[in-house]
Formats: sequence, C-alpha cells, structure tokens
Amino acid sequence: MSKLSHYDDAGQVSMVDISAKSDTKREARAHAFVKMSAEVLRALPQNPKGDPLEVSRVAGIQAAKRTWEMIPLCHQIPLSHVNVDLRIEDGGVRIFTSVACTAGTGAEMEALTAAAVAALTVYDMTKALDKGIEIQDLYLLEKSGGKSGHYRRGDS
Amino acid sequence: MSKLSHYDDAGQVSMVDISAKSDTKREARAHAFVKMSAEVLRALPQNPKGDPLEVSRVAGIQAAKRTWEMIPLCHQIPLSHVNVDLRIEDGGVRIFTSVACTAGTGAEMEALTAAAVAALTVYDMTKALDKGIEIQDLYLLEKSGGKSGHYRRGDS
Amino acid sequence: MSKLSHYDDAGQVSMVDISAKSDTKREARAHAFVKMSAEVLRALPQNPKGDPLEVSRVAGIQAAKRTWEMIPLCHQIPLSHVNVDLRIEDGGVRIFTSVACTAGTGAEMEALTAAAVAALTVYDMTKALDKGIEIQDLYLLEKSGGKSGHYRRGDS
Amino acid sequence: MSKLSHYDDAGQVSMVDISAKSDTKREARAHAFVKMSAEVLRALPQNPKGDPLEVSRVAGIQAAKRTWEMIPLCHQIPLSHVNVDLRIEDGGVRIFTSVACTAGTGAEMEALTAAAVAALTVYDMTKALDKGIEIQDLYLLEKSGGKSGHYRRGDS
Amino acid sequence: MSKLSHYDDAGQVSMVDISAKSDTKREARAHAFVKMSAEVLRALPQNPKGDPLEVSRVAGIQAAKRTWEMIPLCHQIPLSHVNVDLRIEDGGVRIFTSVACTAGTGAEMEALTAAAVAALTVYDMTKALDKGIEIQDLYLLEKSGGKSGHYRRGDS
Amino acid sequence: MSKLSHYDDAGQVSMVDISAKSDTKREARAHAFVKMSAEVLRALPQNPKGDPLEVSRVAGIQAAKRTWEMIPLCHQIPLSHVNVDLRIEDGGVRIFTSVACTAGTGAEMEALTAAAVAALTVYDMTKALDKGIEIQDLYLLEKSGGKSGHYRRGDS
Repeated sequence: MSKLSHYDDAGQVSMVDISAKSDTKREARAHAFVKMSAEVLRALPQNPKGDPLEVSRVAGIQAAKRTWEMIPLCHQIPLSHVNVDLRIEDGGVRIFTSVACTAGTGAEMEALTAAAVAALTVYDMTKALDKGIEIQDLYLLEKSGGKSGHYRRGDS
Repeated sequence: MSKLSHYDDAGQVSMVDISAKSDTKREARAHAFVKMSAEVLRALPQNPKGDPLEVSRVAGIQAAKRTWEMIPLCHQIPLSHVNVDLRIEDGGVRIFTSVACTAGTGAEMEALTAAAVAALTVYDMTKALDKGIEIQDLYLLEKSGGKSGHYRRGDS
Repeated sequence: MSKLSHYDDAGQVSMVDISAKSDTKREARAHAFVKMSAEVLRALPQNPKGDPLEVSRVAGIQAAKRTWEMIPLCHQIPLSHVNVDLRIEDGGVRIFTSVACTAGTGAEMEALTAAAVAALTVYDMTKALDKGIEIQDLYLLEKSGGKSGHYRRGDS
Repeated sequence: MSKLSHYDDAGQVSMVDISAKSDTKREARAHAFVKMSAEVLRALPQNPKGDPLEVSRVAGIQAAKRTWEMIPLCHQIPLSHVNVDLRIEDGGVRIFTSVACTAGTGAEMEALTAAAVAALTVYDMTKALDKGIEIQDLYLLEKSGGKSGHYRRGDS
Repeated sequence: MSKLSHYDDAGQVSMVDISAKSDTKREARAHAFVKMSAEVLRALPQNPKGDPLEVSRVAGIQAAKRTWEMIPLCHQIPLSHVNVDLRIEDGGVRIFTSVACTAGTGAEMEALTAAAVAALTVYDMTKALDKGIEIQDLYLLEKSGGKSGHYRRGDS
Repeated sequence: MSKLSHYDDAGQVSMVDISAKSDTKREARAHAFVKMSAEVLRALPQNPKGDPLEVSRVAGIQAAKRTWEMIPLCHQIPLSHVNVDLRIEDGGVRIFTSVACTAGTGAEMEALTAAAVAALTVYDMTKALDKGIEIQDLYLLEKSGGKSGHYRRGDS
C-alpha cells in the first residue's frame, strides 16, 4: 500500500523532496456546493449594484495563490491559471474551480482551496439570512499532468 | 426580509461598520467531515513517529487567525481561543472547532475557516492513498454572544 | 517644529509607543484618481458579466486591513469599517475611501493604502488597453478623532 | 479593440492562463512623486541617526515581492531584481523603481506597487509635519520583454 | 509542576483561552548577539549611503507584528510599541528589543521574534563576507505585566 | 575584500539582480539549540496526546517558505524540500534543518529561518515552565550548489 504524503522514511513530517521531479504542466479541477434555502437564493441576484458571487470568485482566485501558506506541507507553486465559476442552482450555489501550473507538484490542493474559500465567502455574504447554510461535496473532479496519471472522478 | 451581509444602502460591497457595536464575548463552534475509505483510515494511525491529525489541528488553528485575510469582507478579529478537535470514526475524520473572541463581530467565520483548513490538510496528507476523498457537512454548530442571539443547529 | 514620525529621541526608527494613548473613534477619508483615455473608459462598463470596479473595490478593502504589513512602522489596527467607492468620470476613475477604527492611532494610512491599491487594481485591469494610465492625486481628504484634531483638506 | 485584462471569453474575472507563454526576461520601471512643503523637505535629512528614505526603500522592495497578494488577479512572480531609488528634489521626493523577472508575465504591476508603497511610506514618516502631502504621477516609465513589445513612456 | 503551554486538559494542542484574562499593559525585552569576525565588522559602517543595521531594525519591527503568523499557537496581539536597537561591539552586533502591548497575553514571544529576525537580517547582509557567522544568546531579558509577575533575567 | 550583500554600486540597498544567474540545485543545512533545564526537558514527552516537537517542526517548515517575507532583501524562492529535525538531548532540544531549491540563489537563509522559528516555537511551548530558556548556536552547517562553492562548517 502507498504511504501517507509528507512523511519521510523515519515517519517524520517534512515537505517532500520534489527536486528530482521535472516540471510538467499540471491541471486540476475541483467542486463545492453551498446549500441554502430558496429564500436566500432569491436574495442573491436582487442586490442592485453588486454581485455577491463576484466577491466569492475573487476570494477563491486569491486563495489558490496562498494555498502554500494555509496548508502546512504544500509547496509554493506559481500558478499559471486560476478560474472560479459560481452558478446559482436549485438548492444552492455550485462552484467549479480550475487551476494550472507548470511545476514538479501541485494544482490539486490549489483547486480545492479555491473552491473552499469561494464557498466560505458565499456563506459569509449570506449568513445574515440563514445560519443553516451548509458547504457540501468539496472534492477533486479531475487532475492531470502528474506522475500518478490522469484522474477523473467517477472513472474507475 | 433581512438583506445580504456586507452591502451598504446603495448596494455596494463594503466592510460593514461595527463602530457602534460594543465588544461582547462571542463563541462559535463548527463542524466538517472528511470522508475516506476504510483503507485510508487504517493508514492514519500507522505512521511511526508523527500524527497526521496533529498537523491538521495546527493548520486549523493558524487558519482561524487568518480568516480576515482569506474572506474579503471579514473584520480583523483578535481571537482569544481556538480549539480544533479531530477524531477518526467509521468512514472518515470528524472535525469540531470552537473559537472565542471579545469583539463587535466575529467567531462564526473563524470557526468555519478553521474547520475547512483542517479538513483540507487531512486531505493533503492522505491524497496519495485515495483521490476520491470528500469534505462534507461543513457548517456552523452553535453561535453565541452576538446581537442575533444564541443559535444552535437543529433548534428551530 | 514637529519632528518626523516614527523616530525616537535618539533618532532611531521605532514603532512609536501609543501605550499611553486612549482608544478613541478615528475616521479618515482619502482620494485617488486613475487617469485614462476615453477609449479605455468606454471599455470598462462593456464587460458582459463582471464589473471591473468591483474587483478594485474588494482589493482596496482588503488592502486597508493589511496596511500594517506593507507600511513598516504602522501599528496593527483592527478596522471597524472600510468603504471604497469608485466612479467613472470624464477622464478617468475617481476613488474615495473611508475607514474607521477605535484605537490609539490609525485610519489615515489605512484610508490612503485602500485608495492606492484600488487604483493599482483599476490599472491592472485596464493596462492591456493603455500603458499610459496614470494614478494622480492620492491624498488625505479628512481625518478626525486623533489628538491633532479634525483635519479637512482645503481648510486652513 | 483589445479587451480588458483578466476577463475570460464569458466575461468572468479569472487569473488569465499564461501556461502557453514561454518564460522571458521582463523588466519594468515606474515612477512616483511625493509632493510636500519645503519645510517638511528640510526636516528629512536632519534626523541624526536614521534616514527616512531608507525605510521607504526597504518597504518598496518588500511590496514588489507581495504584489500578487495585493492585486487580486496578478500572478505570483518570483522577482530576480528590485531597486527603489528615492531622491529629495525641490517640491518633494521623487521615486524610481525597477524590477526584473524571468517569467511568462509580470514586472509592470510589481514596479508600480513598489513605487506606490515607497511613496506611502514617505508619507507615513512625514505626516506629522504636514497632512497636505500628495502622491502624484504614479505611472509606468518603461517595460520590456513581453509579447506586446518595448514600451517607453513619451514615445509614440 | 506547571504544564506545557498551549495544551488543553486532554493533552491536545490548542490556542489557549484568554477570554477571562483582563487586558493589562505588558512589556518585554529580549536580546540576541550576531557573532562575526573583525573583518566583517569593519565592513559594516563602510557602506557609503546605507546603514545595514537600519534594514535589520526595520525587519525586526515588522517581524514583531507578525509573530502570531509564524509561531502557531501565539495569539494575535496588537502591539503598542516596538523598538529594536543594534550596536556594533567587539566580536559582533548586539541586539536589544523591547515590545509593549495592552492585552490578555503577549509581548514575550514578540520581543524574541523581533530579535531573531533582526539577527537573521544582519546575517543576510553580511553572509557574502563570512559564512561562519553565528547567532547566539537569544533570550528574554525582562517581562512585566502578566499574571506570573515581573521577570528579570539573572534575578532569582 | 568582498562587499556586503544587497548593496548596489552606489551603496544603496536593493534586492540584488540574479537575472543572469542560471538555476542550479542548491541545498543548505542549519543548526540551532534550545537550552533548557532538566526539569523542562522531562516535561516534553509527558504530554499525553500531543508531541510539542511536532508543532515546532511544522512551524519551521512553514517559516522556510516565508523567509522572503521576513528577511527584507531575500528573493522569493520556491523550495523543493524542507526538513526540520528536533531531538531531545541532555541540556536541551537540538534542531537540524535542511532545505533544497532549484534557483538562482537561496537555501541558506531559508534553512536558518526554519531553524530559528522551530526554536522559537519550542520556547513558546515551554516558556510557562522556565523563562530562562536560551536559543544558542544558530548557524549554517553546510551549503552547496551556489557560485561560491561547497561550504561545510569547520572546514577551512
């Protein structure tokens, strides 16, 4: 069986050595869903001048760049592309993120972190209306470019 | 109906004015669940010298303090207490966070952010074993000390 | 004559001692102008789904909170309110910021930093259209609540 | 006509994809002017042990490195060189910055951000003497190495 | 015997609860010594326009404010005063820091962090001359204002 | 004699130009010692569920990545490997760090910063037991990969 990430042979936490890995283009896509009542959903587009989803999109993009500050053992990855897409649907706001980099590791945690922070920002802007809002289904959709091959959720 | 948070009367985003609010003790508790296969769960305690949950706990505590950097319209809240508790259960790792502050706003987003980042860190440390890991049920459990009264999830 | 800020009696830089100052409500307003050609200005509202000024507004709000990280001798001031207002006018985008805090110092640099970063973000989003864009007239409009009394630009 | 930076084809804000761009050496120079009264200017070199312009120079260098944290849609660019030059002149302090990197984008916003933060720091250190200080003429002087060719202000 | 800091009753790491502590004025002073050869010391004041110790002083002041970002379990403490003093002596550069705050905890780690980062910055600016430079004697000199009473190094 | 780092020909501080340096693999190892009483040392492994050294290890790894934020003239270096090793010995906790990168400069300050912050974190977790704890012998052990050749402490 494979072993946990970020542990060296002596079982101590480290930031794993990627010196020997060559830089390849890596891409990852992630997903999250912010579940809220129909009443709150109706309030979202009513705001006269500002779009609450725009603030969340910006927050998600910024968070992707700061993943290595938040997740202790992530490498500092200069990202070449970040996209955060938010859609109002029945039952909530659906979030898709996609991130690309050319590096020896990365893209997966960055896509997930962008989705998590975009979702938290949606929550932050709607929480006055409903404290029961839930963030669900935060997971990886797809990843390519790494040594472990192409992953697509649902394939097996 | 109440309006969205963080918008002024003209409908523009702002960091809302809490100047007139008096400082009170505020507490919030949040929850998240990292769902993973039994095989990955068994790997968690096998690590000889380090505890993967310890790294996640530290990451969650640090993230609570940096909530205002990640969520664009959150105030800078000096926190008086942060606790992050992770438990291995059937089907995954359950996370409970609790945060306290004495301020004019706060604690809710900080507790949620701590839970989200702790969950992402668990994911980061196990992702080599299983890319299908999901973060679920990120929500507020309880909040007290604010103007809107005591909230406890499930009450109504 | 008064002396430079942030120097102690021996002429060494320090972060000045505000321990003896009592916390008062402080407010400051600042201004900046991003001068651009009529052609670029016309492009701003044409964007189908996103408002470029919204991103700048968010950037300015976030920068106000991080003033103490950027300006070496500024104290860490928890802000109670930040507003950034951007308006398309003949010849450019006019920016007004207002910041409030209850502290022993502050609000002035925070309002100016918010204006500067909002202006730089407008520049960043329009720079593909015109490299001759200029940021002008970054200054304090008004300040109140400090020991030095109420300042209003243009009064004397 | 060209379109705004940082918007994708659907008109949504994103951090634009530079994956396909090859790394080239890029250089940019920017300018700012901090306008102040003759009385304040005379105070600047009088400080016995410390040079106020030195603190501003350091602040500008540090800010260049953190441009991607402040300007939401900027890429993380590892800079190979930053220089910030401040000169006392009649009527104020003139600031020139120059920044270099080898990357798929960058240097322009980094040079401007360095100039803005150096100027704000000069303001911060002199504000006790004069609240009417103004930051003017923050603009790009020159840029080379990118796809859009060599830009030099004043040429046309 | 007292127990380790930052552990709760169950032996888990947490950011300890200071909610019940009242804000008092707290002060701490720390010390470090950067030991270097006589040759390197002679180079320090020779630099024509810039003072290497000035950069270190600024770095130490900034680091004090960011202690809570670097030391995982430190509370966010708004500091009311930071001073960093560097002196060229026989055998090296001696550093004294002093920090004040009005809070429920703090000042001790902030004074030590300021001294450590000022010392590392001296090292950074002299390392081209001598790789054998050592940082020694980083410790607390004095602390007052907390529940544990007045500490002065050497007293017993 | 060589000159101080980070000064240009006019004697002004700058972030030195490494544009012309080619990227090579660079490695550095550093050391620090946290000296404490036998009583405090005995308390370290007694903690029932958490390992105080684990928190320090994580703090050191994170600090290495943020060296360029703390040390003003350091370049932003994406690190490919960080390891922090802490050992309880007679008289204290010994810290060894090792850092690798592929870049035009770096690894030396990053290894030292990791050691300093790991040592400060050990101090932070034990300070309730003993305020006389000292951090000693923070220095470079080894460096390779740069233009100046292979350095090993003690060789000459």
